[in-house]
Amino acid sequence: MMNEFENDLICENLSVNSEGHLCFAGLDTAALAAKFGTPLYLMDEDRIRANCRAYQAAAKAAFGEKYRILYASKAAAFKQLYRVMSEEGMGIDVVSEGEIFTANASGFPMEKAFFHSNNKTDTDIAAAMDAGVGYFVSDNTEELSALEKEAEKRGVFQKVLLRLTPGIDPHTYEAVATGKVDSKFGFSIAPGLADDAVAFALSLPHIQLCGFHSHVGSQVFDSDVFLRTAEVMLRFIAHAKQKYGFTASMLDLGGGIGVPYIAQNPKPDLAGIIAEIGEKVASLCKELEIEQPEICFEPGRSIVADAGMTLYTVGSVKTIPGYRTYVSVDGGMTDNIRYALYGSAYTILPALKMREERDMIADIAGRCCESGDILQRKVSLPRSTARGDLIACLTTGAYHYSMASNYNRIPRPPVVMLRNREPSIAVRRETLEDLTALDV
Amino acid sequence: MMNEFENDLICENLSVNSEGHLCFAGLDTAALAAKFGTPLYLMDEDRIRANCRAYQAAAKAAFGEKYRILYASKAAAFKQLYRVMSEEGMGIDVVSEGEIFTANASGFPMEKAFFHSNNKTDTDIAAAMDAGVGYFVSDNTEELSALEKEAEKRGVFQKVLLRLTPGIDPHTYEAVATGKVDSKFGFSIAPGLADDAVAFALSLPHIQLCGFHSHVGSQVFDSDVFLRTAEVMLRFIAHAKQKYGFTASMLDLGGGIGVPYIAQNPKPDLAGIIAEIGEKVASLCKELEIEQPEICFEPGRSIVADAGMTLYTVGSVKTIPGYRTYVSVDGGMTDNIRYALYGSAYTILPALKMREERDMIADIAGRCCESGDILQRKVSLPRSTARGDLIACLTTGAYHYSMASNYNRIPRPPVVMLRNREPSIAVRRETLEDLTALDV
Repeated sequence: MMNEFENDLICENLSVNSEGHLCFAGLDTAALAAKFGTPLYLMDEDRIRANCRAYQAAAKAAFGEKYRILYASKAAAFKQLYRVMSEEGMGIDVVSEGEIFTANASGFPMEKAFFHSNNKTDTDIAAAMDAGVGYFVSDNTEELSALEKEAEKRGVFQKVLLRLTPGIDPHTYEAVATGKVDSKFGFSIAPGLADDAVAFALSLPHIQLCGFHSHVGSQVFDSDVFLRTAEVMLRFIAHAKQKYGFTASMLDLGGGIGVPYIAQNPKPDLAGIIAEIGEKVASLCKELEIEQPEICFEPGRSIVADAGMTLYTVGSVKTIPGYRTYVSVDGGMTDNIRYALYGSAYTILPALKMREERDMIADIAGRCCESGDILQRKVSLPRSTARGDLIACLTTGAYHYSMASNYNRIPRPPVVMLRNREPSIAVRRETLEDLTALDV
Repeated sequence: MMNEFENDLICENLSVNSEGHLCFAGLDTAALAAKFGTPLYLMDEDRIRANCRAYQAAAKAAFGEKYRILYASKAAAFKQLYRVMSEEGMGIDVVSEGEIFTANASGFPMEKAFFHSNNKTDTDIAAAMDAGVGYFVSDNTEELSALEKEAEKRGVFQKVLLRLTPGIDPHTYEAVATGKVDSKFGFSIAPGLADDAVAFALSLPHIQLCGFHSHVGSQVFDSDVFLRTAEVMLRFIAHAKQKYGFTASMLDLGGGIGVPYIAQNPKPDLAGIIAEIGEKVASLCKELEIEQPEICFEPGRSIVADAGMTLYTVGSVKTIPGYRTYVSVDGGMTDNIRYALYGSAYTILPALKMREERDMIADIAGRCCESGDILQRKVSLPRSTARGDLIACLTTGAYHYSMASNYNRIPRPPVVMLRNREPSIAVRRETLEDLTALDV
C-alpha cells in the first residue's frame, strides 16, 4: 500500500519507521529531538560526502583531471564542514575573513581556497594572504590595486581570477540572479569593462592572472544557462588571447545547480548537466582554437541543502473560525529567514505522526514577535497536532544556520551532524550567557 | 544660504561641521569611525532618554498617574539599553528568555517587565517566573494552561493580560499588521475566541487576570488606528464586565507609532496622538460606565530608531555604462536586513563630503555574496565617492543590531553609545574567535 507521506520523502535520506516517526539518515527524529532539544539543525554528513563525490565523478567524466569542485561556504560554514571538505578533496569558495578564519582554524589546506566578495577590505586582503589563500576572485579595480599593493609589500606573486558578468539572465528570482549585465558583482563583458580589467590586471607586476569566473544565479535546473555562460566566457577567453596574448588556464563557471524543496520541484540531472557542459566546452575550445582551461564549479546549496533538516516543537494550535489555523513552533525567522526573505517553499512534516491522516491545513508560525515570521503557509498536518508535537522542515542545510540571527534575543540552535547513524554536535547550542557575551 | 543637505538632517541630533563632516549627537562621524572602525552602530543615548521622557510626559498629561510606558525590547536589546530604561523609569516588553536574561543581568526591576510571545515554551515560562517577570501577556490557551500549572507548582498568583486581536487593519505593510482578525497573535474578539479566553483565564485558580493587550501594527502616523482600537478594546472590557463580572484594571494599547526614515515621511505628533487617545478613553469609559483602566503603551521603534546611525566604509564604486552605479560598502544585510526583507527606505549620506554636490545616483550594495544584498537604491552621492569614503545610514536604532546575523561569516558591528558628547562601547565588536566559539 502506498502511504500518503511517501511523495514527500523528497530525498533518499528520509524514511518512516514502524512507530510512524520520521527518520533522517536512518535515525529517529523523535530520539534526536529528545537528546538534543529543539529547535535543532540536523546535517546528514554521509549525504554531504555523497553530494561532493557526485560532483567529482561527473566532472571527472566530463573534464578528465582538468576540473575543480569548490564548496561555496556561504551556504553553511563551520569547522566540521570544512574538515569534511578537506577529507573529500574539495576546494572551497570563501567570501570573508570570517570564512577564511574558520576554514584555516579547521586545518583546511588554504591553497585550495578561492576568495570572493564584491568588497574586500584591506584587512580582508592581508588576512587572506596571511592565511595562504590560493586564489583571489577579483571583483573590481579598487580591489586589484589593493591586491597589487599588498602583494608587492610581501614580495609575492598573487594568483587571481577576474569575476566577469556574462550578461545571462537565468530567468530566476531577482535576488539570486547575478550574471546579468546589471550586477553589483564583477566586470561586465558587454560594455567593455572586462577588457579594461584584463589590461589592468596584466599590467600589475605582482598579480598572476589565471583566468575568469562567472556565476549566473541560483536554483538553476537545466543545462541551458550553463551552456550559454560557458560560450560567452570561452569566447571572451579567445578574445583576450587574441587581444592581449593572455592564455587563461582556469574558467570558473560558478554554482547554481538547483535543489528540490518540495515534491513538485524538478530534480536536476547533475551528471547529465555537467556532461553537456563538458561537450560544449570541448567543442567550443576546438572551434575557438584555445587550450581547454581547467573548469571549476562552485556548488553550495546542492552540496548541503538536502543534507539538512530542522526540527521544531509545537507550542500552540490556534484556529480562527472562518480564517485560518496557525501552528506556532519554537523557532522561526531566526533560524530560517528564507520564507520571510524570498517566500521560499518547504516541505514540512509531522515528524511523530507520519502515518496519521493529514486532514488540517495550517500556517506554520515562528515564535518571533513579528507577523511576518511565518515558516510556511498552507501546510497539511493531522488535526491532532498539539503542543509538544514535533515538526520537521526538510532541505534546510543551505542558508539556514549561515543566515541565523539572534532576533528577539533567541539563541541559535545547534548543528548536529549524522554520520554512519551516529549523531555528533558540530556547532553547540548558543546559551543565554553567549547572547550577552559582547554586552558591556 | 540653504545647503542642499539640510533637508536630509531628519532628526535634531544631526548636524554638519565646518569640515563638511556629518555629526551625530554633536560628535564628528569621521572621528568615531576612526576610533571604533566600521561598520559601526552608533546610538545617541541622550535621544533615547528624550524619547522616553516625551512618551512619559504625553501620557501623564493624558492619563494622570494611570499609565505605563513599556519599551519594546525587540527593537534593540542589550544590557546598557536596559540600564537606560531602568534609569528612565520605563517598563519593558520582553519576548523571549533571552531578553529576560539580558534585562535581569543588567539589573532591570523585572516586576516592570511584560512577557509577550505567541509561543512561550515551558522553559520560557519557568525562567520568566524565576526572574520575577511582572506580567505575562498571554497569547493562547495552551499557554494559559502551562502558566496555571507552573504557578500552581510555585504556589503563586500570576498576573496576566490577554492579548486580543481587535480586527483593525492599520493599512500598513502586511508583515507588520498584527491587529487584524487573521493573526498568529492573540485571541480574536470577533469570532468569540476572546470571550472563551476570559472565561478560561478566570477559571484558573493561580492566574490573576488584570486586563487586555492589543497591538495593531507598525509605522502608524496618526491617531485614527489607536482611537478605533481603544474603542474596540474598551467595549470589550465593558462586555467582559457585564458578562463575567470581570473588571479590567489595565489596557495595553501596544506600540506602533511611526518614525520618519526619509525627509518625505510624516513626523507623527506624539503628544497630540496620545492626547486624543486620552480624550477618547475618558469619554468612552464614561459612556460605557466602566472605571478607566491603567493605559499602557509599548513603543520600540519610536524610542530607539532615530537614536541610531550606521557608518560604513566604501570599498568600490562601479559604474556599468547604460545601467547603474554600485557603491559597495563594508556592511550590508548582515547588519541591516530591512531593505532585503521589506524594501525599507533610508536616508543615506556621504559623511565626509556633506558640502559637496551630490551629482551621482548610485545603489548602495552590501558586501554579502548575494545580489539581494542592497542597502538602498538610487541614493544621491558626490561623484568623487571612492574607496575609503564614509557612508552614513540614518535611523538605524531599531531592528538593526537586534536582527543582525553572521551571514557570510561576517562579525557583527559594535554598538557605541553617545552621551553628553562622550562615546562608550555598549556592545563590543564581534571577533573572528567569537564566530567560531560554538564550533566543535
